[in-house]
Amino acid sequence: MEGRKYTAAVVTIGTELLRGLIENTNATWLCKQLTDLGIEVKRVVTVPDDMNEIVETIRELLRKVDIIVTTGGLGFTRDDITVEAIAEAIQQPLHHRRDIEQMVLTRCRELNYEITQEALVKVSRAPPTAQPLPNNTGIVPGLHIEHQGKHIYVLPGVPREMKQIFQDHVKPHLQQLTETKHTIELIVHTRHRTEIEVENKLKNIDMSRYHVTYIKIHPRQPVQISITLQHTDKQELMKKVQELQQELGKVLNIEKIEIKT
Amino acid sequence: MEGRKYTAAVVTIGTELLRGLIENTNATWLCKQLTDLGIEVKRVVTVPDDMNEIVETIRELLRKVDIIVTTGGLGFTRDDITVEAIAEAIQQPLHHRRDIEQMVLTRCRELNYEITQEALVKVSRAPPTAQPLPNNTGIVPGLHIEHQGKHIYVLPGVPREMKQIFQDHVKPHLQQLTETKHTIELIVHTRHRTEIEVENKLKNIDMSRYHVTYIKIHPRQPVQISITLQHTDKQELMKKVQELQQELGKVLNIEKIEIKT
Repeated sequence: MEGRKYTAAVVTIGTELLRGLIENTNATWLCKQLTDLGIEVKRVVTVPDDMNEIVETIRELLRKVDIIVTTGGLGFTRDDITVEAIAEAIQQPLHHRRDIEQMVLTRCRELNYEITQEALVKVSRAPPTAQPLPNNTGIVPGLHIEHQGKHIYVLPGVPREMKQIFQDHVKPHLQQLTETKHTIELIVHTRHRTEIEVENKLKNIDMSRYHVTYIKIHPRQPVQISITLQHTDKQELMKKVQELQQELGKVLNIEKIEIKT
Repeated sequence: MEGRKYTAAVVTIGTELLRGLIENTNATWLCKQLTDLGIEVKRVVTVPDDMNEIVETIRELLRKVDIIVTTGGLGFTRDDITVEAIAEAIQQPLHHRRDIEQMVLTRCRELNYEITQEALVKVSRAPPTAQPLPNNTGIVPGLHIEHQGKHIYVLPGVPREMKQIFQDHVKPHLQQLTETKHTIELIVHTRHRTEIEVENKLKNIDMSRYHVTYIKIHPRQPVQISITLQHTDKQELMKKVQELQQELGKVLNIEKIEIKT
């Protein structure tokens, strides 16, 4: 038996993204991580550094998915309003948090960074239920907020800080939440020339019998197909991979099949 | 006098993006193009190849912005459902369009591509008010749909096709719509050490007097500032650039200012 399928959205916050000044590599990286954990990403949304836009987006997505990961807008300056906006979205107050203040001061000492009192006060505010996620790369910690059974992870926009906090704190938490799934990808090299021909032949296979979570027919000549299978039980998954290969061989003219784990 | 400010959203359609399999370079490129045209991009949304999700997203964004540009899901296979979803979102029927069919057949002949009857019928369907945008790189044309004063541009996901159609057909149309704006960016190298100090000093300048459309304080030591000015009249813009430089010199300790046009 498979566990329930969790859904997620990634929200990347920053006017510079909407002006096309930098590639949104954070979104791609997070989508890959969440997918590998067996979580279905339903949306990536990029919003400007604007209170109303962030609040509205978070509220919409809380109605839609189980898990929200935000990046960006977590810092010292006036346009860093993510924490305030999320508190507003879930209608919680912002408290001065001594635990966060201590974390920030410790990091400032370690990095020999002079922080102003104003900046310290700003980054130490969080909703009372938020759990700080230590930032061992930069200064300001991430946050985990559980809200009405949904999970919000608030991460910095600087890629190396975001990745470290995700790997060290978010991923282990999501693994517990979702159970680990094994993933196998088949790359099927056919001898067919058109995608539509391949698509019509594939209609004869009930993919749900093989724990298939994703299929893509690539518009190449000859046509290639990527098929992803995911399951918690590795032996069961290997059995289904073999059965599916036999089934594919019956309906398609195949040159070779690559298996990626 | 400046014209009204148009707003836009970019919708990138494709489950492969939400699985983190490819960087969403289309979104970044389109954001840059729209910004350079003086259009404010309010959202980038990535949605899966799913009818309900696309319909819901298009409807939300039609309430929010003036211009929507979509990429992806415009092709021969079953998961290419963008045109159908947009027709549904704006509650228009899909008609078989002889003009689109002729465009597609001409491109197939030029590229020596064998198209099945099923595929031809599929890609020749569009709402009756849609204007096809010729694809001189691939096969399937883009579409422009005007709907209750809003503009929807439907483009392919293959980057070189998307870019060609945008440059040849979407950009000229948007230029007419918005008037061309001149853009100048100032990179201010300060001698200040903290962003918050710079931010507090900048509060003394009313940026709206100088046609400033974007400011970013970069967290470097010493701190740098990017300031973008946009206006339709080049002479007026140059005058304001000079005035702003003087004003900046009064409140900040500046090492140098670079000017980018």
